[in-house]
Amino acid sequence: MTRLGQMRLGLSMRYHGYHLAGWRHPDVPAAGTLDYRYFLDTAQMAERAKFDMVFLADGIGMRVRDEPEGSLCRSAQTIDLEPLTLLSAIAANTHHIGLVATASTTYNEPFHVARKYASLDHISGGRAGWNIVTSWSDEEARNFGREKHLDYETRYERAAEFVQVVTGLWDSFEDGALVRDKETGLYFDPAKLHVLNHRGKHFSVRGPLSSGPTPQGRPILVQAGAAEQGQAIAGAYADVVYSMAFDLVSAQKYYASVKEKAARHGRSPDAVKVLPGFTPYVGRTEAEARAKYDEMRRLIHPKVGLAVLYNYLGDLSDYPIDGPVPEPDGNVRIRSIGKGLFEMSQRDKMSIRSLYEFMMAGNGGRVLVDTPGQIADDMQVWFEAGGADGFNICPSHLPGGLQDFVELVVPELQRRGLFRTEYEGFTLRENLGLTPYVNRHQTLASSSQAAE
Amino acid sequence: MTRLGQMRLGLSMRYHGYHLAGWRHPDVPAAGTLDYRYFLDTAQMAERAKFDMVFLADGIGMRVRDEPEGSLCRSAQTIDLEPLTLLSAIAANTHHIGLVATASTTYNEPFHVARKYASLDHISGGRAGWNIVTSWSDEEARNFGREKHLDYETRYERAAEFVQVVTGLWDSFEDGALVRDKETGLYFDPAKLHVLNHRGKHFSVRGPLSSGPTPQGRPILVQAGAAEQGQAIAGAYADVVYSMAFDLVSAQKYYASVKEKAARHGRSPDAVKVLPGFTPYVGRTEAEARAKYDEMRRLIHPKVGLAVLYNYLGDLSDYPIDGPVPEPDGNVRIRSIGKGLFEMSQRDKMSIRSLYEFMMAGNGGRVLVDTPGQIADDMQVWFEAGGADGFNICPSHLPGGLQDFVELVVPELQRRGLFRTEYEGFTLRENLGLTPYVNRHQTLASSSQAAE
Repeated sequence: MTRLGQMRLGLSMRYHGYHLAGWRHPDVPAAGTLDYRYFLDTAQMAERAKFDMVFLADGIGMRVRDEPEGSLCRSAQTIDLEPLTLLSAIAANTHHIGLVATASTTYNEPFHVARKYASLDHISGGRAGWNIVTSWSDEEARNFGREKHLDYETRYERAAEFVQVVTGLWDSFEDGALVRDKETGLYFDPAKLHVLNHRGKHFSVRGPLSSGPTPQGRPILVQAGAAEQGQAIAGAYADVVYSMAFDLVSAQKYYASVKEKAARHGRSPDAVKVLPGFTPYVGRTEAEARAKYDEMRRLIHPKVGLAVLYNYLGDLSDYPIDGPVPEPDGNVRIRSIGKGLFEMSQRDKMSIRSLYEFMMAGNGGRVLVDTPGQIADDMQVWFEAGGADGFNICPSHLPGGLQDFVELVVPELQRRGLFRTEYEGFTLRENLGLTPYVNRHQTLASSSQAAE
Repeated sequence: MTRLGQMRLGLSMRYHGYHLAGWRHPDVPAAGTLDYRYFLDTAQMAERAKFDMVFLADGIGMRVRDEPEGSLCRSAQTIDLEPLTLLSAIAANTHHIGLVATASTTYNEPFHVARKYASLDHISGGRAGWNIVTSWSDEEARNFGREKHLDYETRYERAAEFVQVVTGLWDSFEDGALVRDKETGLYFDPAKLHVLNHRGKHFSVRGPLSSGPTPQGRPILVQAGAAEQGQAIAGAYADVVYSMAFDLVSAQKYYASVKEKAARHGRSPDAVKVLPGFTPYVGRTEAEARAKYDEMRRLIHPKVGLAVLYNYLGDLSDYPIDGPVPEPDGNVRIRSIGKGLFEMSQRDKMSIRSLYEFMMAGNGGRVLVDTPGQIADDMQVWFEAGGADGFNICPSHLPGGLQDFVELVVPELQRRGLFRTEYEGFTLRENLGLTPYVNRHQTLASSSQAAE
């Protein structure tokens, strides 16, 4: 089965990369996570390779539990910049690449989110995207006046209404509303201004939003994660979905499910792009790829490795690290996963060390350790077999892990005609191959004209 | 009385300038308020002139009342970008100038504000400032789930606690906390991490903040306005105060009051810089200055002028615009001010038109229409007589109104030794001549060491 068109590529660029030990790689500037230039260089590298977008995941609370003792101060994935503020600075010195920042619907106000992303869309000339998430950790709750995170139902109910308000605010001004006629003194056409007047269960927001119509009509909406309610939001709204799958069959299943949900909302299957993520370790030979994987593996401090296992298997500090994984007892936090890991370690004869090394290679996601040709083969199969519209690349470390991918894999994809050699449009929406966004009030106006 | 030292200069650069008709000036790009390049050009012009900082005022609600009818769609001061997002993009292409954005304590969460401004401080290399305000309009309230704005007491009580939380979060990591030793795998020194654990009347915020120590120690704190409770916050925290005064005597009174409040908090009077604002119309001759003032005056659409008078004098649409100002009746919104304006118009024989022209020239603030030498004289007198540590320049239109000031007035101030010809430091804090910020936990540590 061959498909027309080309694949989409996103870059996930949080922290020093996806691998918890990424910061210890010799090529990585250890102070990078607070350095705008570090992320700018990375984004510009992705832009030179014609990536569709860069993406910043986010959490709004730092872990403070030091379990096992001595692991917290060795975790580099604690210190960061706020994603939207960072991407706005990056917007100023990039020209084509999309800029997707995460903002939580749980501890934000929709008015602020609508305004900030609309502003980023203007500043970037139409390259803003909002990754819609809910916050599920107690660490985050405690920074916003709560002891525990919101329950699942409330969280997603709030998220759905939040998105409704934000998208409503973005439609405050129709295209062409801002006439700004110096001669007559008319600044905007009042018939093209719409006050939202939203009154719902979680929010009352009048509007309008002061940001005018944005270059993309509205920012791109991104959704990630497998939660059923999140998928419902994705079906109704998302332009891009970041997915996670370890094999083609489950990728295809998820892909079909998202497209079907979009169709149920009267949307074309092409209106939502599904991008599974993976962490590539690329070498000119298999041995070189494996050596890169091993180099990263060896940089893991055991305390950090044990912290990764803590929630599932408890504190293993007193066990021999190269010995077998003990069976989790009733005191561990998430015993169901713990039992699965224990069984896997038994089956594959994994020590404690090799278990956490395995888990950390892609920070819990899919990992490909291979030559450019084999990685391109793998991507092509998923793309052509209805498992992916493209991929979200999650390098182990930055910018080195990205550099390997853009120097070795991207040219191979381009040779096969699977990936662009030049940007097609000016906005992220255009480059993703999405149809232009039409403000709801304009749609209504055209429908009523058509009916006359 | 002569003072040592030089004055500070800030630039207020919201919308197309301070004058409501600024957008109609032939030199002004009418689409500017949504154009990052417009504000970047303006900020770079201020940076070439060695200004200390640019400043963006803000409101988080757009007026929707069209009173008098036909005025709203002629108001250019409706459409804008979110200030912090804009300043982050400007940070990327400036190098010395301070970047002060407004964020409301009424409809934000302290954790978000702390994180975003800390991020801007990193991105800009130590040039971030937060203008602390409370939101007092119903327009804003209605975008955040409320019908009416919060009462005065609650608003300022919340603001004071908000600032306490934000500054507490900024002290999460002491200087030198981030050791990031690749060899040993130690990322930060756990003894230098402090969890806030704030529990107050309005907020419970645990922290820590993930932003590490910032280049300035913490962003610069700015306060504006005459409200007694606001001044209390300024005395305790502010590094910079934007003030408003129409004559030297009231400027001196306000200046002394702020310095005295700082002293009451054990702070040096030099630790807080007081910057009165004014709108300059500068000409090589008095006649040229007056011609610039008149040019702007003539661009006012009568509907916009009448809207400025509406709250104080009611709807005057049916009165002859060049006729006398009628006495306000009991139906007007703010009759006290209305009576004052009516009496002034009687005394100075002002028509309806000349009254709003007068009020709009500096958007309610002080206006100087003069030659460079006379404006410099005026600034020097205020500076040397204890009325100002510097000034916040509020041009009528951008960038033209700023250009006149930097080409004509700034060189005169420099000739007199009243203003810098080169930046003294790297950070805004250094350029303002403030002492380095010391994290509260380091202060405690040094005190206890000293006591040993």
